[in-house]
This record gives sequence, structure tokens and C-alpha cells, in this order.
Amino acid sequence: MASGHNFSNYSLIIGRFQPIHKGHMEVIKKCAAESDHITIGIGSAQYSHERNNPFTAGERYLMIDESLREEGISNYFIVPIEDLNRYSLWVYQVKTMSPPFSKVYSNNPLTRRLFSEAGYAVKDSPLYNRELYSGTAVREKMAADGDWRGLVPSAAARIIDEISGAERLKEISGTD
Amino acid sequence: MASGHNFSNYSLIIGRFQPIHKGHMEVIKKCAAESDHITIGIGSAQYSHERNNPFTAGERYLMIDESLREEGISNYFIVPIEDLNRYSLWVYQVKTMSPPFSKVYSNNPLTRRLFSEAGYAVKDSPLYNRELYSGTAVREKMAADGDWRGLVPSAAARIIDEISGAERLKEISGTD
Amino acid sequence: MASGHNFSNYSLIIGRFQPIHKGHMEVIKKCAAESDHITIGIGSAQYSHERNNPFTAGERYLMIDESLREEGISNYFIVPIEDLNRYSLWVYQVKTMSPPFSKVYSNNPLTRRLFSEAGYAVKDSPLYNRELYSGTAVREKMAADGDWRGLVPSAAARIIDEISGAERLKEISGTD
Amino acid sequence: MASGHNFSNYSLIIGRFQPIHKGHMEVIKKCAAESDHITIGIGSAQYSHERNNPFTAGERYLMIDESLREEGISNYFIVPIEDLNRYSLWVYQVKTMSPPFSKVYSNNPLTRRLFSEAGYAVKDSPLYNRELYSGTAVREKMAADGDWRGLVPSAAARIIDEISGAERLKEISGTD
Amino acid sequence: MASGHNFSNYSLIIGRFQPIHKGHMEVIKKCAAESDHITIGIGSAQYSHERNNPFTAGERYLMIDESLREEGISNYFIVPIEDLNRYSLWVYQVKTMSPPFSKVYSNNPLTRRLFSEAGYAVKDSPLYNRELYSGTAVREKMAADGDWRGLVPSAAARIIDEISGAERLKEISGTD
Amino acid sequence: MASGHNFSNYSLIIGRFQPIHKGHMEVIKKCAAESDHITIGIGSAQYSHERNNPFTAGERYLMIDESLREEGISNYFIVPIEDLNRYSLWVYQVKTMSPPFSKVYSNNPLTRRLFSEAGYAVKDSPLYNRELYSGTAVREKMAADGDWRGLVPSAAARIIDEISGAERLKEISGTD
Repeated sequence: MASGHNFSNYSLIIGRFQPIHKGHMEVIKKCAAESDHITIGIGSAQYSHERNNPFTAGERYLMIDESLREEGISNYFIVPIEDLNRYSLWVYQVKTMSPPFSKVYSNNPLTRRLFSEAGYAVKDSPLYNRELYSGTAVREKMAADGDWRGLVPSAAARIIDEISGAERLKEISGTD
Repeated sequence: MASGHNFSNYSLIIGRFQPIHKGHMEVIKKCAAESDHITIGIGSAQYSHERNNPFTAGERYLMIDESLREEGISNYFIVPIEDLNRYSLWVYQVKTMSPPFSKVYSNNPLTRRLFSEAGYAVKDSPLYNRELYSGTAVREKMAADGDWRGLVPSAAARIIDEISGAERLKEISGTD
Repeated sequence: MASGHNFSNYSLIIGRFQPIHKGHMEVIKKCAAESDHITIGIGSAQYSHERNNPFTAGERYLMIDESLREEGISNYFIVPIEDLNRYSLWVYQVKTMSPPFSKVYSNNPLTRRLFSEAGYAVKDSPLYNRELYSGTAVREKMAADGDWRGLVPSAAARIIDEISGAERLKEISGTD
Repeated sequence: MASGHNFSNYSLIIGRFQPIHKGHMEVIKKCAAESDHITIGIGSAQYSHERNNPFTAGERYLMIDESLREEGISNYFIVPIEDLNRYSLWVYQVKTMSPPFSKVYSNNPLTRRLFSEAGYAVKDSPLYNRELYSGTAVREKMAADGDWRGLVPSAAARIIDEISGAERLKEISGTD
Repeated sequence: MASGHNFSNYSLIIGRFQPIHKGHMEVIKKCAAESDHITIGIGSAQYSHERNNPFTAGERYLMIDESLREEGISNYFIVPIEDLNRYSLWVYQVKTMSPPFSKVYSNNPLTRRLFSEAGYAVKDSPLYNRELYSGTAVREKMAADGDWRGLVPSAAARIIDEISGAERLKEISGTD
Repeated sequence: MASGHNFSNYSLIIGRFQPIHKGHMEVIKKCAAESDHITIGIGSAQYSHERNNPFTAGERYLMIDESLREEGISNYFIVPIEDLNRYSLWVYQVKTMSPPFSKVYSNNPLTRRLFSEAGYAVKDSPLYNRELYSGTAVREKMAADGDWRGLVPSAAARIIDEISGAERLKEISGTD
């Protein structure tokens, strides 16, 4: 090691990625380009098989990893992070599980507030068409047999098909 | 997607990596070479700042990642996994957090037993000099200002120095 | 024992039983008749004193036990099971707490999905009049001083009266 | 010690105090006057940075303490109490964390029920204008830049201003 | 309900039953004979696959149930109970999960103290040869291929053989 | 208050206080004298009825409060704090539960390290005769009917006698 790490341009992006969609990809591409390294935190990692959280952390990890490789992005870490359901500790839970980072990209007011209170630099997350791309929109189209595949990276679509993800979402959205 | 994933040669290696040492590296190199992909599970992810668990999951993640890149290994996932302290659920906690895998490399009797009961293929982990290389040995040398650097990959040594890891271990090993 | 257990016709029925009602009894009777043995899992065991979960697991255990004995059913186990609030682990939590079983009776889509993913045989639960018999209906009638006693087995009604269960439900449904 | 403690006139008042308001103060003043000692339990202690739980337990502790001193009240303990989210254990969690008490002041039906079942004397809490004074009202006025300061003790208003509490509430109430 | 329950002669016996042995059986037979009904609480229910806790709660449930049936005992409930690792709440956790009971049989000082503090009648547990019969002795003989079968009820021995319990214990007692 | 709080001279002292002894009192007196305000954190708050943790957090709270009043100290907060058993989050758990503080008095290496890493000013705790005064010494004397009363403040001795604390410790230290 000549000079050691300089983590000042290591960044964090955090989301639930249920599933990763093209809006996420725009954000990640821009942040990865302007950062030395990005950590992609998979939030609410312990939840799955719920209407709003259909996929396990491991499934989400694979979708993110292959979507980024498909785009030629390579300067990233992926880190599943379990919720402790105590906001005052959440930043420190993220910090414990993740390699070091100095900047946080987020437009979520709570995320911005919590990382700001903890002394991190918080930056605006790049904008994308949030009407079109959202986890909710993807899940609703999945449950209704709509065209969700166009909303997610092709690698994610492929994995969701392999694990019969849309079928799972439809089943768990049912009522008996 | 032409043919989809074939996860039958995706493997898991799990350990605490407190810290990663050259014995781990021998195992990882051999397993990565004979697997399509390996998941490296960082166990007991929530523990740190203890004599036997000095480093956070995020610090361990960084050490593992840079050590593997330094060796030219690239077909891996790194996944921090929190202990639930219930062995009957542990395999399923690992499965939830990790991308899919079919084989598990381990010589640990409990790990072998638990994954076998759950239907995974369990393979012997490659042998290395366990007298020389062990987490305990590294931590003892750290605490005693001995030559621990020779026991770990150079990337890990560099990171431990950057975070003053040996100093932390010595401090928390003290008594008041 | 010459030949050992054959658990292939051991079944599971799981519910919250808040409280057990005559619809549950129809299901249990049919399943007990066509199974060698049934495990009755009391879900969400740690919750009580809530509008939707008024009774403790122990109170529910007693109601179920006496209702089944009253019907002459004897080939059952009753097992309180705490929710871990992680669906990917729920089947294994049930498996840990219950004597072995091979079949699961359920019409609940999530329950069916989770046990199917884990390799259990999932069977349709016998039908009953779900308009008439439901936990919600019983609790609403209790809170409104309606005729809930006709909806539950007489043993359950007796126990609810002994523990002043309707009074509890009315009180905790109040607002100050 | 000549005669020892007589805890029969030691009382408990429990609430979330998000934040303490003038209605709380009326209750505390009356109860403190008719009790030898009161314990003020800060419920849901682990939650903060939520729209309905904006302040940490420590911030609430300070607001309560200074508000009571300002009123000349001195016979109290303040005790943060974490929710276990299991009502059947809640009374015993309170009992574990608090110095001894014999009476509980509450108009909340669930609180009254749980402490009654556990054998405590439950007394009606003194009345105040609940239309005017409520945590919800204070938080709504804070979020809307309304006049919340008139609804809380001056010590609490001062502390909220020092920690930029209204700004925090507005931020975390936002949506991205 | 003509006369209602009289729970004054309903008793509790609690243990880990890792596994149930003939000493336990002596205690249970005597207590069942002098009680209207007994609840057998399976403590530390969430633990298994440990040297001191080899069997799951469900396995222990089955062993206890069949051992009691074999002896012609029928007036019992079996209740797995998870440890919360907070002794001040443990009695209430047991109370939540178990049908009502008024008496507790135990010679364990902590169990006696906790139930006494909570107002339960605590009775001496019947004596048996504790040198000969103990969970530790059974597990040590299992691990050493000794004659453990003579120490446990024949139903328990049969079940342990069916689940290859001794093999499991030997494996998890190994070290790599 | 014209100008607001200045928390720069608000201090934290944290311990288990099982029970508070005269060594603790020396430390508290000195720290209270040189601080504007001190927070006394009661660590491991959820544990009690153990040989090393005999008293509940509420009992410890009362002992501390009365011992300090007896000494004429009044500028303190007492805060029970539950362990999360994750050292990387512990400082933030303390911070969440406590009114603000800037300095931490401790000679415990781990406590010093954790608060230092989090940016707090850590000061040496005043010295006292640790051979003579220690929680272990008090508990050992209690269990052996020795003269423990001379080691603790008279208020604490009085409370321990009132709750039959020595008897509890002796009982739970027994073996059956």
C-alpha cells in the first residue's frame, strides 16, 4: 500500500430494490461514474414473500449484481442490511455492515435527515422518471400480468423469470 | 437469456473472517477455481469490537474483497449474515441472504450437519496448515505485537493498518 | 417398536385461533379423520390483548384442547408458535417447534406458497361456511354483545366465559 | 432506616410524550400532589424520527425533567421503557425497569386492563382538555408551522427549538 | 358450563428435556397422579443442534408425548416455550404460552424463586437418583457410544434412533 | 433560560451497578462536582435474577437515586439502558436513551474505545480502592453472609434489605 484508501469519494445508495428497476439503474450509473466506489445497500433484507417485499435479499443481490455487470459497472459492493426497526440506530447498522463510505445519495427525506444528523455528506440522488419507474409500478404490473419486463434491467427480468417471481407475487397477493 | 442460470456449481464458503488469513485464501482460491461462482458468507455479522470478533462486517467485507481482487479472483459474492442464535434456522437465514448456491464447502462438523439436514451437497473444504493459519493465531499475535502481517493477505494487512485494527484489538483486550 | 414411525400421514393445520370457531372444528375433524395424526399450530403465539388477537397462546391452547376432546378427537398435538416476522424462515420455525409432519392443510395462499417452496405436500383445506364462521365475526359479535357463543365450540365458549374474554375484548377495543 | 419505604402511595404514569404537552402537565401535577412519588414511564422508548414518534427517549427525558422542575415538582422518577411488542409481558417490562409503584393512573383502556390483570390498583387519570392538548395536535401544528409552542410547557418548547425538533418533524414528514 | 374449571390443582413442570430421561418420568408420574392436570413446559425451545441442546422442541415434544402415553398418563399439556433471556419476564412468558396452572413443581432454586416472587405455589419436585439420571449423563453416553438407552423411556429411545439423534450429537460435538 | 443549554459539560457515567457501591459513589461525587450535569446509565438493564446481575433495573434505579440524594447530589439523570448485544451500536443506543452529554468518564477499555470512535470526549474516571469496592466483592459477601453492608451506601443497603436482596442472591446462586 503506497498511500492507502481515500474513502472520501466512496458513496452509498440504499433501497429495498423490490425489484431493481430502470430508475434505480439510472441512479446507480450516474453515482458510480462520479464516485470511486459505491456501496449498494439492500434495505429491509430480512423481509420477503410479502406483497411489497416479494423477493429475498439473496434474490435481490443476484438481480442487482447481474444488472450492473450487464451495464459494465464494476466499482461496487452489494450489502444486504437487516432493519432493526429503530431509526436512531439505522445509520450505524448500515455503517457496521458496509465497507467505509463518506457520501450518501438519497432524495428520501428520512434517509437524508438520518445520515445528516450522523455527519455524512448527503447528496441529491439523480432524477429519473418516477411516474414510470417504481417498485410499486413493477409489482402491480406483475400481479396483473402486465408488462413489467420493460421496467426492469434485462438481467433482473431473466432472474425473476427463472425463480417464477411473478407467480410468487401473484400467489402471495391472493386471499383465501 | 439463452439458457438461464445453472446454479448446480454455485458454492458457499462461510466463516467469521476475523480477519481473513492465508489459510482462508487457499480455500477460496481452490473452491473458486472448481466452482462457477462462490458466495463468501461473513458469519456473526453483527458482532465486532470483541476480543474474538474485533472487526465489523463491513471491515471484513472490504478485506475479503480486496484480498480476492489482488489474487485475480472475480467469480464471487460477499454476503454479511447476522446470527439469529438458533441453529435450526441458520441454514435458511444464510439461504435468504445469499444468491442461490448448491454446494457448501466446510470441514466444520456443525456446518456440515446443518447443511446436510437441509439437503445441500456438502464437500470437504481444501486443507491448509491450520497450525499456522487461524483467526485465533492472528488475533493473538496482534494483541502481543507479534508478526501477524505475514499470516494475512497483503490487502487485509493494509486495511487493518489503515483502520488501526491492531490498536483496537489491543485496547478492547485490556482490562481496567 | 418394530417398524418405527411413518410420518407420511402426519399433517399440520395452522391458524391463529382467535378464538377457535366451528369452521375450524369442521376442518380439524375432517383432517384428523384422514390423517394418522395432526399438529395444530397456534400462530402468532406471542400476541394477545389486541383487538385482533385477544387471547394468549395458553388460553387458545386450552380452548382447542377441550373442544377437540369434546368431539372425541384424540390424535393431535397442539403447538404454540411465535412469529419471527420473517416469512422466509417461518416454515422452519414451525418445523422446529412441531413434531414431524409431511402434509399441510391450508387454503391460505401465502401458507401454501411457503410450505410448497419448502417441499411439503400442501392439500386443500376442507371447505366450510366462511361467511358465517370466522375469527373476525366472532370478535365483532363479542365486542358488540352479539351472539358469538353459537359460532364457537361449547368448550371454547365456556372457557371464554370463565376468563371473562368478551369483557377483555370490549375493554381493549375501547378508546380513552 | 427506621421505618423503610412504604410504596403504597408510589404511582406510575406512562405515555409516549411525543412531546410532553400541557395536558400531560396537568395530569402529572395532580398525581404528583396526591402521591408520595411518581414514576413517569416513557413508553415506546426505542422509537424516534417517525412522524408519530419524532423524539428520542433521551430528548423526551430532558423535556419532561425540565418541565417538571420548572413547575417545582421534585418527587418523580423518569424511566425510558422499550416496547417488547407483546402485551402480555408489557406490565412486567415496566415493572422491571421502574422503581416500585403500587398505583397506576390511566384512562387508556388497554393500559387499565393490563395493569388490572396484573393486580395493580388502577385509578382514573385527571381530566384535561383533550381536544386542545394532544401529541397529535402538537405534531400537526409543528409540521404545518402552526403555533405548537402554546401547547407545551415552556421548557419543552425551548428544548425542541434547541434541537431543531420542528424542522426534524417537517423533514421526516416529507415524501421524496 | 356447569361448574367451570378449578385450576387450583393444575400444575407446571418445566425443563429442557434434552432428552427426557427416566428421572423426569418419575417426577411426571408422581406429579400427574397428584394433580388434576399438568403442563409440561419445554424450555429453551428455540435451541437445538448444540452439544447441550441437541434436539429441537418438536423432537422433544414427540419424545415426551409418546413416553407419557406409554406410561398411561393422559392428563397433560405439552408446551414449547422460547427463552427471552430476561429472567424478570420468564414466568410471564411461561404463563402466556401455557394453559392456566396454579402450582409449580421444581427443585431448581432460580425457578422456585421466580415463580414464588410471582405468587405461584411452589412445591418440591419428587426426588429421583440424580447421579444416575440426568440430561448430561445421557448426552455424554450418546457422544461416547455408551449405553444411554437404558436411561431414557423406551419411546424416547425409539424416536432418538429414528432421527439418528446419537449420530447428530456425535457430529456436532466434533471439532474440525 | 435566555441562551439555551450548553451540553459541553454534561457527562455520562455508565455501569451495571449490581449493586451501587462506595467506589461508584466516589466516582459519581467527583464527576458530579466537575460537571454541570451527569447522566448515570444503568447498563444491561434487562438482566436480573442472575448471580452477576441480581437486581432489576428498577431496583438499581432506586438504590442509585436514594444514595445520591443522601449525599446531597442533585444534578443527575438516571437512565436504564438495555443491551442490544452489538457493540458497534451500543454508543448510539446509549445516546438514544439519554439526555445529551458530551463527555464520558470511564476507565473501561472497551467503553473508552467505543465512545472515542464515536467522537465523544473520554475522560479518566476518578480512582478508588478497587480491591475493596467492587460489585463482585459485594455479591460474594452477600452470598456468603459476609459484611456487604459496609461496602455500599447506606441507602442502597436499606433498599436491598427491604427487597430481601441478599436472600434472593443466595437463592439464585444455589444449585438443585
